[in-house]
Amino acid sequence: MGQNGTKMGPNWGKSGPNWGKSGPNWSRLVQTGSLCPAQVLATLLRPQLGYKSTFRASELELQRSGAPGTPPAPQDLVFGKFFTDHMLTVQWDRERGWGRPRIGPFQELRLHPASSALHYAVELFEGLKAFRGDDDKIRLFRPELNMERMQRSARRVCLPEFDAQELLECIRALVRLEGRWVPRDPQSSLYIRPTFIGTEPTLGVSPPGRALLFVLLCPVGPYFSGGFGPIRLLADPQHVRAWPGGAGHCKLGGNYGPCLELQQAARARGCQQVLWLHGPEQHLTEVGTMNLFVFWERPDGEQELVTPPLDGLILPGVTRQSLLELARRWGEFEVREAPLAMGAVLGALRAGRLREMFGAGTACVVCPVGEILYQDQLLSVPTMDNGAKVTTRFLRELSDIQYGRVPSPWAQPV
Amino acid sequence: MGQNGTKMGPNWGKSGPNWGKSGPNWSRLVQTGSLCPAQVLATLLRPQLGYKSTFRASELELQRSGAPGTPPAPQDLVFGKFFTDHMLTVQWDRERGWGRPRIGPFQELRLHPASSALHYAVELFEGLKAFRGDDDKIRLFRPELNMERMQRSARRVCLPEFDAQELLECIRALVRLEGRWVPRDPQSSLYIRPTFIGTEPTLGVSPPGRALLFVLLCPVGPYFSGGFGPIRLLADPQHVRAWPGGAGHCKLGGNYGPCLELQQAARARGCQQVLWLHGPEQHLTEVGTMNLFVFWERPDGEQELVTPPLDGLILPGVTRQSLLELARRWGEFEVREAPLAMGAVLGALRAGRLREMFGAGTACVVCPVGEILYQDQLLSVPTMDNGAKVTTRFLRELSDIQYGRVPSPWAQPV
Repeated sequence: MGQNGTKMGPNWGKSGPNWGKSGPNWSRLVQTGSLCPAQVLATLLRPQLGYKSTFRASELELQRSGAPGTPPAPQDLVFGKFFTDHMLTVQWDRERGWGRPRIGPFQELRLHPASSALHYAVELFEGLKAFRGDDDKIRLFRPELNMERMQRSARRVCLPEFDAQELLECIRALVRLEGRWVPRDPQSSLYIRPTFIGTEPTLGVSPPGRALLFVLLCPVGPYFSGGFGPIRLLADPQHVRAWPGGAGHCKLGGNYGPCLELQQAARARGCQQVLWLHGPEQHLTEVGTMNLFVFWERPDGEQELVTPPLDGLILPGVTRQSLLELARRWGEFEVREAPLAMGAVLGALRAGRLREMFGAGTACVVCPVGEILYQDQLLSVPTMDNGAKVTTRFLRELSDIQYGRVPSPWAQPV
Repeated sequence: MGQNGTKMGPNWGKSGPNWGKSGPNWSRLVQTGSLCPAQVLATLLRPQLGYKSTFRASELELQRSGAPGTPPAPQDLVFGKFFTDHMLTVQWDRERGWGRPRIGPFQELRLHPASSALHYAVELFEGLKAFRGDDDKIRLFRPELNMERMQRSARRVCLPEFDAQELLECIRALVRLEGRWVPRDPQSSLYIRPTFIGTEPTLGVSPPGRALLFVLLCPVGPYFSGGFGPIRLLADPQHVRAWPGGAGHCKLGGNYGPCLELQQAARARGCQQVLWLHGPEQHLTEVGTMNLFVFWERPDGEQELVTPPLDGLILPGVTRQSLLELARRWGEFEVREAPLAMGAVLGALRAGRLREMFGAGTACVVCPVGEILYQDQLLSVPTMDNGAKVTTRFLRELSDIQYGRVPSPWAQPV
């Protein structure tokens, strides 16, 4: 099931853009009022009218850059600062649908100044990585999950559908072309940033009639340049990242900009990230831009791993899902998706039952939490004192898969 | 007082960018943890280092367009679709501060594809209007209120400060240059769209080190092209526009994109706008992109005008503020800023006590509500049956001021 209850089978998109087979559930969309029957009819007629309901990797155009750059050494890499020589772009408009995908030189975008991405944040992105293994092969980590989430984000801001498998094929072609940019370093990787923006050139607040999908590539270095160290979090219940009925479960630009203010306040107070709380019970939801995990002993002495549930407030992270699946495969302790109230966490800390706390995301895999600044008190979280055993085991097992040291269907040759 | 409790005197900015006099309250920013003392020191030293803490209207550069366009006839105008020949742009970066403001031909923006506006919605906008009066003079309506709100929005997404008075002078210069685009029609006007975006060219989620402020102008026609008619609203408590601790009181792009999905569902169900509800009591907050007003009889028989309070969920509209001030000046009925629960509105409707309901905003001034689709029931709101007396009086009095038919300090010659 997709985040919003829409059925999203794992084969979505594989059978191509034949709307009758694998496309939206029209009757459901009409019933829920998302579409009126006339819109359905117009959309069903589109193929006859020359409307292209997806782009095709087989139609990919390539224009090579005339000035290829030099990839920096892994130790000089800063996240998201260096870009490869080429980028992927695909245009869409309401009349003709999708254009041909194009790989061309990395360059500035030329946008109408009224573009809906710049005024109304009609925009979303994804983040995934390509890894170069010891065997020199390049692998993507569970990219189909990012493609599915991208589709769900697009629906939330009325950006058009596309065939996820076709986008994935275009991304593979881009990564293959830029293979020399995938670092030969067991802690570095190539970050892939698919982005999708509304380019409607009018100021009315309505679904965009034009859009641009583009993909950037960035070589990125080790997340823990100074060794595997814990972070300090600022927990401030006055600031709220997401809300029931909002869009916190989608990877929309609008979920990030308004969080910068508290993040800056956190830095000024000596914290690296924000611990986002929600509601009267101050439920822990996310850590900065990562999902949150707690490994603790329950009052009955049983050990368990807990992460907040996908209740619409939480981004459904690919790393989050992978850690849950790994831990359930281990079968060594209970694994639960359940609300984590600040009171329960404080109680476990006081009773010495909280063993480890960590963030989980594409950038770092896992990131141990060492302290929480909460109501002007600095709480010590004993993740490192306890050897960060679960945290580091996740890091090791996931890295082994990502770099191809352990075979897994999660790591797909590009 | 500003929306977030910061003191915002009406003279803010008039004395220029001398930080010691009219700038931020440093001790407060340090106490609240928004800034660390080192940041304060660095910022205080900036003038010595050649950092420009504001741009200056006196340094405005002008490059005239070589291909001036023809303004459409008022009846052909569509909101936000036609733009004038020129636009204003000003660049900022963290090292040098603000560059010179520039009026040049209206043209595409060239943006780095990693720009923070496109990925993290580091973006905000404003909307105000210039009116051509019967005396042929062009006037702006309370523009200083838009400038103050723009400053508050900028702080929320870590975009830099600037002198609001200097921006207003630049906008005046742009409107004067484009005077022929201000329609000679008592129902049309020139819409002014200041926009401020982060152009940081890296993907790290952090305050932008580069930014672009730009201003577009659009001639706009009568809002009620088919006469002054009421709209139908969809009220769906499952979708939430803003929440406590969020950024609903700032004019950020991120408040708009995620609302498109429900707006589209509203259109598909025959409604023109969404009535945004919030919380367990289903408080009415906004109508589409407008503020909401109700004029009713209380159970004790007294008449009153009610609009939701500025509690952080509501955009502090300039039209909202102006209607409140007008009504209080009339002194004919009670005027209250107070929460409006759906239950109270339904009760007043059933008892025949609800006289008028309307949206209020820059685009329309006022927009009468005729029906609400709520829990699959179509509720009739008797705004028009009651002659929309208060609604139309607001429209007439505010229009008289805007078009200079009644002298007022709210309407300022450009």
